[in-house]
Amino acid sequence: MAAIKVAEQEHPVPAFGWAARDQSGVLSPFDFSRRATGEKDVKFKVLYCGICHSDLHMIKNEWGIATYPLVPGHEIVGQVTEVGSQVTKFSPGDRVGVGCIAASCRSCDSCINDLENHCPKAIPIYSGHSSDGTVTYGGYSDVMVCDEHFVVRIPDALPLQSAAPLLCAGITVYSALRYYGLDRPGMNLAVVGLGGLGHVAVKFARAMGAQVTVISTSPAKKDDAIQNLGADSFLISRDQEEMKAAMGRFDGIVDTVSADHPLVPLIGLLKTNGKLVLVGAPTKPLELPAFPLLKGRKMVGGSGIGGMKETQEMLDFAGKHGIAAEVEVIPVEYVNKAMERLEKADVKYRFVIDVGNTLLKNA
Amino acid sequence: MAAIKVAEQEHPVPAFGWAARDQSGVLSPFDFSRRATGEKDVKFKVLYCGICHSDLHMIKNEWGIATYPLVPGHEIVGQVTEVGSQVTKFSPGDRVGVGCIAASCRSCDSCINDLENHCPKAIPIYSGHSSDGTVTYGGYSDVMVCDEHFVVRIPDALPLQSAAPLLCAGITVYSALRYYGLDRPGMNLAVVGLGGLGHVAVKFARAMGAQVTVISTSPAKKDDAIQNLGADSFLISRDQEEMKAAMGRFDGIVDTVSADHPLVPLIGLLKTNGKLVLVGAPTKPLELPAFPLLKGRKMVGGSGIGGMKETQEMLDFAGKHGIAAEVEVIPVEYVNKAMERLEKADVKYRFVIDVGNTLLKNA
Repeated sequence: MAAIKVAEQEHPVPAFGWAARDQSGVLSPFDFSRRATGEKDVKFKVLYCGICHSDLHMIKNEWGIATYPLVPGHEIVGQVTEVGSQVTKFSPGDRVGVGCIAASCRSCDSCINDLENHCPKAIPIYSGHSSDGTVTYGGYSDVMVCDEHFVVRIPDALPLQSAAPLLCAGITVYSALRYYGLDRPGMNLAVVGLGGLGHVAVKFARAMGAQVTVISTSPAKKDDAIQNLGADSFLISRDQEEMKAAMGRFDGIVDTVSADHPLVPLIGLLKTNGKLVLVGAPTKPLELPAFPLLKGRKMVGGSGIGGMKETQEMLDFAGKHGIAAEVEVIPVEYVNKAMERLEKADVKYRFVIDVGNTLLKNA
Repeated sequence: MAAIKVAEQEHPVPAFGWAARDQSGVLSPFDFSRRATGEKDVKFKVLYCGICHSDLHMIKNEWGIATYPLVPGHEIVGQVTEVGSQVTKFSPGDRVGVGCIAASCRSCDSCINDLENHCPKAIPIYSGHSSDGTVTYGGYSDVMVCDEHFVVRIPDALPLQSAAPLLCAGITVYSALRYYGLDRPGMNLAVVGLGGLGHVAVKFARAMGAQVTVISTSPAKKDDAIQNLGADSFLISRDQEEMKAAMGRFDGIVDTVSADHPLVPLIGLLKTNGKLVLVGAPTKPLELPAFPLLKGRKMVGGSGIGGMKETQEMLDFAGKHGIAAEVEVIPVEYVNKAMERLEKADVKYRFVIDVGNTLLKNA
């Protein structure tokens, strides 16, 4: 602990954010510091930061890996203010973003294969430990300093506030669609759950040329799914008749639900060789019957975020196709209330904190 | 039922087999009939038939789909005695085999893509219903009549008795390795369970160039796995130290176990992007935690037998590489005892009935 304190005191860049102090999860103003801009670092003023459901898990230490004080936020966008002498990709004024990864080893198999997200030594953007021993602090804060390798460019076509959620929700569903081969035009896909991940999944899948069905417990979401998000159809998961009629229909299903839910009905909706891809993480184990997998050579896979190269590719794709999240922009003072609402899934579809205008020291 | 009886009486070919009459599962001699050799049919004298674990489930109606009297057997080999006028692939005297599938629709997506095993109208070789309404009877019998499309050629290099189990156990593991991309030289693979499927999986995986580890609850199987089957190493699944040391080691795992067992430790053994392929079918659902799948982009898939084209490809590969099952050849009179031993996994590694020499009417 002494080492950590010393290193933090050595950081010369004053920073200000909102932090949870304990597992009550209540966020409040917090002074800390960031390192000076290194040779390969990009320093940027944070303008917006998305609120991911995992921020909620983390501030309450529901996964048991939180370090307090904890400054959440891994859907971070802003404008470059300074770059190190070796930085080649960015210049002051650029619109940039940082996602879940602050650093990785850059030499393991995963890193070499552009899968920094699977590097065993990857350092999370918050509640992780930097190589100098200091704790990492996320994007509910006014300034970021990050190695340029982990910084991505936000296309001009995308508004910053609605691009922010692409850094986690966007890359998660994009990478899942690509890796599992669910990106071919004409495919018949389903997206389970219409929240932060699900609504972006619908947009990406449509842009890749799929027919997209939203599967949800909430009939109330139907109109929005079809009229605003571009889904082709809507299936109510509790309607057994509807579900039965859809048996064997889908080449793939992206399951974004992080509440406990049965997999068997979803596996039944798949064609032969169909793929069910989990991108939400229910805390309790799911029930997986073997027989339905064997019978139709089906699979259940997982996927979480993506590597840096693919994250940039996803943003460029999003820019080209005009894909961004539907967001409710909030001032930082609203963040605790937003967490309460998020817990009840009461948001269409992502809260984004207006950091640039509201997260101000001595405001 | 009347229609079935009439059709059966119309079958002109007398046949003799051993059948289970009810869910006691006891097998005893049984007279029945087979159809005349049609234009595209191959008729053959059965010489050997393997005993698959699913035969045991079926004779006791444990899956609830048995039709009695039930003549089991879907690992059937023999010698052609007659071919129909339109048969192009086979001639009398040929060494042939038939597996799990008696017929399929030949026109659906699965059939067109050489996946007759996934045709919704596929007719199982026993306890199914033919298009003429008669019940299908399997290979614990003296004669088979089958459309040539569902007949495969047994390479001369393979002894018939040890080739028989390839028709189900062999194609199941071969197809799983191929489809899930676990067939590349240098891969690090594991095979869970060293029974009928597992021991053949070790041989195929080795022949494809993988490093193969057997994972088993039985330390007693280690010597045989390494010295006789060619496995490179052996891991005792109940030895937590050994399992821990192997975390993240495998590109793929073929899980042949049909008893209930935990998946989590196996998922932990996979590398990033690793694949756990289930080819055994535990009756109770397995527990699948989502987080370990997301974290390393892992998947759990299923696979069962294969299409006819791939079954022939598997046999040709087996012939080229000298791969066949390790078998205990038994006379048909021993079949009920063999079922008892199979229930206790007391066989190395597959019982095969010597049909040609022992399953004789009026013997």
